Amino acid sequence: MKEAAEILEELGVDYELTIVSAHRTPERMIDYAKNAKTNGFNVIIAGAGGAAHLPGMVASITTLPVIGVPVKSRNSIDGWDSILSILQMPGGIPVATVALDGAKNAGILAAEIIGAFDDNISKSLMHYKESLTKKVLEKVDVIENKGWRGSKIGF
Amino acid sequence: MKEAAEILEELGVDYELTIVSAHRTPERMIDYAKNAKTNGFNVIIAGAGGAAHLPGMVASITTLPVIGVPVKSRNSIDGWDSILSILQMPGGIPVATVALDGAKNAGILAAEIIGAFDDNISKSLMHYKESLTKKVLEKVDVIENKGWRGSKIGF
Amino acid sequence: MKEAAEILEELGVDYELTIVSAHRTPERMIDYAKNAKTNGFNVIIAGAGGAAHLPGMVASITTLPVIGVPVKSRNSIDGWDSILSILQMPGGIPVATVALDGAKNAGILAAEIIGAFDDNISKSLMHYKESLTKKVLEKVDVIENKGWRGSKIGF
Amino acid sequence: MKEAAEILEELGVDYELTIVSAHRTPERMIDYAKNAKTNGFNVIIAGAGGAAHLPGMVASITTLPVIGVPVKSRNSIDGWDSILSILQMPGGIPVATVALDGAKNAGILAAEIIGAFDDNISKSLMHYKESLTKKVLEKVDVIENKGWRGSKIGF
Amino acid sequence: MKEAAEILEELGVDYELTIVSAHRTPERMIDYAKNAKTNGFNVIIAGAGGAAHLPGMVASITTLPVIGVPVKSRNSIDGWDSILSILQMPGGIPVATVALDGAKNAGILAAEIIGAFDDNISKSLMHYKESLTKKVLEKVDVIENKGWRGSKIGF
Amino acid sequence: MKEAAEILEELGVDYELTIVSAHRTPERMIDYAKNAKTNGFNVIIAGAGGAAHLPGMVASITTLPVIGVPVKSRNSIDGWDSILSILQMPGGIPVATVALDGAKNAGILAAEIIGAFDDNISKSLMHYKESLTKKVLEKVDVIENKGWRGSKIGF
Amino acid sequence: MKEAAEILEELGVDYELTIVSAHRTPERMIDYAKNAKTNGFNVIIAGAGGAAHLPGMVASITTLPVIGVPVKSRNSIDGWDSILSILQMPGGIPVATVALDGAKNAGILAAEIIGAFDDNISKSLMHYKESLTKKVLEKVDVIENKGWRGSKIGF
Amino acid sequence: MKEAAEILEELGVDYELTIVSAHRTPERMIDYAKNAKTNGFNVIIAGAGGAAHLPGMVASITTLPVIGVPVKSRNSIDGWDSILSILQMPGGIPVATVALDGAKNAGILAAEIIGAFDDNISKSLMHYKESLTKKVLEKVDVIENKGWRGSKIGF
Repeated sequence: MKEAAEILEELGVDYELTIVSAHRTPERMIDYAKNAKTNGFNVIIAGAGGAAHLPGMVASITTLPVIGVPVKSRNSIDGWDSILSILQMPGGIPVATVALDGAKNAGILAAEIIGAFDDNISKSLMHYKESLTKKVLEKVDVIENKGWRGSKIGF
Repeated sequence: MKEAAEILEELGVDYELTIVSAHRTPERMIDYAKNAKTNGFNVIIAGAGGAAHLPGMVASITTLPVIGVPVKSRNSIDGWDSILSILQMPGGIPVATVALDGAKNAGILAAEIIGAFDDNISKSLMHYKESLTKKVLEKVDVIENKGWRGSKIGF
Repeated sequence: MKEAAEILEELGVDYELTIVSAHRTPERMIDYAKNAKTNGFNVIIAGAGGAAHLPGMVASITTLPVIGVPVKSRNSIDGWDSILSILQMPGGIPVATVALDGAKNAGILAAEIIGAFDDNISKSLMHYKESLTKKVLEKVDVIENKGWRGSKIGF
Repeated sequence: MKEAAEILEELGVDYELTIVSAHRTPERMIDYAKNAKTNGFNVIIAGAGGAAHLPGMVASITTLPVIGVPVKSRNSIDGWDSILSILQMPGGIPVATVALDGAKNAGILAAEIIGAFDDNISKSLMHYKESLTKKVLEKVDVIENKGWRGSKIGF
Repeated sequence: MKEAAEILEELGVDYELTIVSAHRTPERMIDYAKNAKTNGFNVIIAGAGGAAHLPGMVASITTLPVIGVPVKSRNSIDGWDSILSILQMPGGIPVATVALDGAKNAGILAAEIIGAFDDNISKSLMHYKESLTKKVLEKVDVIENKGWRGSKIGF
Repeated sequence: MKEAAEILEELGVDYELTIVSAHRTPERMIDYAKNAKTNGFNVIIAGAGGAAHLPGMVASITTLPVIGVPVKSRNSIDGWDSILSILQMPGGIPVATVALDGAKNAGILAAEIIGAFDDNISKSLMHYKESLTKKVLEKVDVIENKGWRGSKIGF
Repeated sequence: MKEAAEILEELGVDYELTIVSAHRTPERMIDYAKNAKTNGFNVIIAGAGGAAHLPGMVASITTLPVIGVPVKSRNSIDGWDSILSILQMPGGIPVATVALDGAKNAGILAAEIIGAFDDNISKSLMHYKESLTKKVLEKVDVIENKGWRGSKIGF
Repeated sequence: MKEAAEILEELGVDYELTIVSAHRTPERMIDYAKNAKTNGFNVIIAGAGGAAHLPGMVASITTLPVIGVPVKSRNSIDGWDSILSILQMPGGIPVATVALDGAKNAGILAAEIIGAFDDNISKSLMHYKESLTKKVLEKVDVIENKGWRGSKIGF
């Protein structure tokens, strides 16, 4: 999950990183979710693996958007359990699910949500997107100059 | 889930049937689970579909055995989401999962748990098991007497 | 997808509903995504089935949050293709994926995103959540008064 | 399977650990299951992998609750065969299935079954649950004091 | 399973059709399997669905070849449970598994096994195979004479 | 596949081991299958991985029983492709499929087929089965004498 | 498969439609594949379901491009067997696989292959593509004029 | 993907190898696809992993045949996402999909497409196919001369 924190910092978004367990600290989970909006949060990112109930349970308590990160934990069956128990929420209680082990994308999605209402974050995202494009185009240049065999780029 | 109630009655086990939703009534769920033992329950059966969090969340709160029934609800993907989000609980918080749409078996399992400590229920289960055997043997008789074509038994 | 429109109306969120096809109108898709922010949108909801490229392609072009709805269309394999081709986006380009055929939840998630910055929408969501709870509790009342057999509630 | 034995000891539950094979010692399996109740057992835990018939066959012979542990053995297809051949029991013959390689949870579930009728075991379980909560809260403390980067906790 | 009986008759193979349940009549199953060879059987066909233990349990008791038919029964998950719990037998105890709901092919396979040592059955199989070829070639004729649109053959 | 050869030798069954490729030597495959019966074979074992066409194509040409071994080859998707393309044969052309990478069981199944008509092989199989039982019972003895912790048996 | 024929006619591509079965007419299959190039064909489309060996076997014999259509036939497991046994060909023997039941797309792909070397077919394809775009844009017009509720377009 | 380049060289087919990303360089992708035919290309091979949109998006823009290679990239779920998001294209926009990580077969398929209209490439393919056959037959020789144990061929 630390990739979420790192990209949020890179994009200039304030965040809090802590541990909440649906199954081991259900009361803490409820308190955390219930007070998140009052505590000034705009988005909650929750990662979990296996029978992953944390994102959905948090979403059942708050009206904030909840981003769920399915984690391929040790006891997960190739990640299918993590994905399905986060994604397949019943009508009324959505969880914004990202790819398996997609903590980084969860951070970017949170920034996009905030960026929709905050020009500075929106600009950070624009620069980030441009940097992704630029990295690809630089590789294209190398290939055109040195040939793909000489480029030392793995295909 | 009514098949669970029906078999419990047939086996002579007292029960309460009600509605608790992890995502729509999280507080009711917590109260229910927290007080179940004090209220005299020995076992809890919880059925849910899709991203099915009810059995696992109840199990995280009580020390009673929790039986989970994966339900192939309208929004379920062939039942896989229901099964995995009930079965794949993390270490420390087991849910006794039965087959997809296995409410009847959940009732029988609850009776077996109680029957391990109650001779009357144990006898009911013995009779029930014998009746299952008897039904098969009766069909065998019909086949032997009338031939499989004449037996009107579907194969 | 109309369930998304209906719940957005119910929650008081302005929206536009139109048709964009990644594979049949790629240029329209690009124009739509590129101009969405300038045109005043805060969130984009994109539904698609089978090899579902629309949500991810839109997300690659805009910095707005994109919600993807995997649709179990006629040519989908039980929805698995729709889910995986929307959910499993590469690092840098998230799509906020909701459950299979979860258009309604996509609408609610969009409202939650806007509600994080708009008190009126946030209040609508709070009322909506309370109405979900209330409906469950009303059923509990019926069961307690009439018994589950008399309640005409399907289990 | 030894994790089941270890947690049963930790929780103060008497147990016997031995080897029974459905396919290599079918007669021993039948004897074991048939006499388990008379021999004073309250619960049977059976682990198996691949086409895992042991838990279900034992359940077909005894009226005791049978807990099945799907094992991801060498010849298993990512555990799917183990899970499905234990979980999907026909009507009348339930197996209380736990997560893939969930021997520890099988032990806890057995303790919960016994604890429903035995106050000492019930108290052990309560302490065990509290210890799970405590471990999470201790980590929260470390994070709050040292920051997540300084906490040396893996995310 | 009656398709197995029908094709065996068509191919001239003697057979017995009866009902044995691994979970409801475990003792009958064991007697049946133990005595099958002495009773003059050369092959056993066993069909079962869900957590399908019959073919594997029979195979654990007899040294005769056992053909397993995975049945997509009412409580099966699209047949995956039936297939995996019959196919994935451990080393030492094979089950000759045929396609899902492949009772007819089970009958043909049994005939092939007997036909390997019995010239009459072998000839029946040869004729059967030729009849399959002939049916296809007749359709080809129709298409060549009438065109595919005029052939009334579904494509 | 060499495990098939090894167990056949152990059980006293004559065999030939060679290489035939459906996709690289289609003509050799057809010749081999067409002449197998005349060449004195009673059973054919064919192993293949990925889009595994060898067992089914051989079965389409001969009337001998064909045993298919799904191999989890380098280019296989966890073995699912190997299993399904061998198991799911159309009506009329069965393949006796064994477990993934189940070459040993393919050898035993071939021996069972021959043993159904040959007393020596049948006796070999009986001894083999007894040796499997004996190995388990020896472990039980060790556990009873030394306790499971002292038994050095992995659980 | 007739959708392939229909779109080929629409695009102005000559074709032959007939029946070849890998498992029922293996010799016809080999003759057909061996002579296809000499007979003037540029592409072969082969559709099959279940353990679908036709496309791969044809591809093993000819050097022409072979397009495989996985068909969700009656005996298929939701199409997974058809897809995997066509797609997962070993190195050296490719099959150009299209979507499940994608006969129409197989026809278009065949036209694209021919169109790469034939300007008339290439133009047909261009018109076809434009017609797909046009149909979407017409719907957009209707929605903009009548609103989505008035448009009678299903969402 | 370099295996595609290598086999194309071996077969004497001219090619260009470069990097285009659907999600990071959508504009470059569109330009590339739009101009491919004018730039003299006959076939496009596109490889991608996870939510793999590149092959389908390219196919939506060009009328050239597009070969898609599902890549089991780091963020892929055992390759299922890559396969389904490339294979399951909607009606009108086919992608010629090859096996997971089947870059080599993509190259051969491209050669087959060109070879259908170019005798030199067709002859290269014929030689290539013969070399595959020859390698198998050489192994058969070794086995026949030295026995399978002495042949040092892995089975």
